[in-house]
Amino acid sequence: MIERLHTSQRMSKIVKHNGVVYLCGQVGKPQDNVADQTRECLRLVDELLAQAGTSSKNMLQAIIWLADMKDFAEMNAVWDAWVPEGHAPVRACGEAKLATPDYLVEVIITAGL
Amino acid sequence: MIERLHTSQRMSKIVKHNGVVYLCGQVGKPQDNVADQTRECLRLVDELLAQAGTSSKNMLQAIIWLADMKDFAEMNAVWDAWVPEGHAPVRACGEAKLATPDYLVEVIITAGL
Amino acid sequence: MIERLHTSQRMSKIVKHNGVVYLCGQVGKPQDNVADQTRECLRLVDELLAQAGTSSKNMLQAIIWLADMKDFAEMNAVWDAWVPEGHAPVRACGEAKLATPDYLVEVIITAGL
Repeated sequence: MIERLHTSQRMSKIVKHNGVVYLCGQVGKPQDNVADQTRECLRLVDELLAQAGTSSKNMLQAIIWLADMKDFAEMNAVWDAWVPEGHAPVRACGEAKLATPDYLVEVIITAGL
Repeated sequence: MIERLHTSQRMSKIVKHNGVVYLCGQVGKPQDNVADQTRECLRLVDELLAQAGTSSKNMLQAIIWLADMKDFAEMNAVWDAWVPEGHAPVRACGEAKLATPDYLVEVIITAGL
Repeated sequence: MIERLHTSQRMSKIVKHNGVVYLCGQVGKPQDNVADQTRECLRLVDELLAQAGTSSKNMLQAIIWLADMKDFAEMNAVWDAWVPEGHAPVRACGEAKLATPDYLVEVIITAGL
């Protein structure tokens, strides 16, 4: 059985299937710097994981896209402070321009229930 | 048990495992514009999901790479018209150059059975 | 139940959940050419999959990022020689700059147990 939450014509924000929770790519607020955008991404991840009945302690995989890899250290500082100790997911981070030039970071999370 | 379909030395087009269907990245025809390439990607996704015993109504996650983010609106118009209402997967879309400059869009789908 | 191996504050190298093994993005040695970096990535993948209790014969999905798509053929030659015949995962390959300009290729693997 597949459960979808916050479903528009383009995408669902949450899909649950077989004990796995998939979140759509999260972005921050376009005006903000990369640290604040990362904080907002991760706040949204926390919120969506809670709505899905799980939490960041159960993350499985994180894919992170940075619009410019020069922001790697600033993004990491926020990320490292946010991850619950001992519960880090696997992770990969690559450079990719995002939907508009105002978005500096996007975080794609998969978690267990 | 892992089931593979259309397996070459480089990749399988379909892998089934634990009730999840993974498709290899789909691209369209190199000569076409982005709308037509997106249409062809999604036609191939439909075809492969059918061969896997499932359908676009069961999509879990879509990762979309655009060679140039200027094509975002045109790709989205085709995507939005194609997704079965109420069955949208989670989605993330980033800019990434593809195997050759002729490819404008690539779609990576995961679905439930 | 989620099992994590080689867990730092930033990421785990291996996460196991529901019969699926997720590996963090693997890179090679910064000084090396793309063929050698790919060989080192895949050697690390073999090592991590063995630690997780599985092997490259059970790969489900591979996402490959190349810093420059001009290296596509060289990366593929190493990849094609490494994949166990008849066991190829689904695959997608896009261009993405990596953590530093010295990294030419990153490989993100998901496998079954």
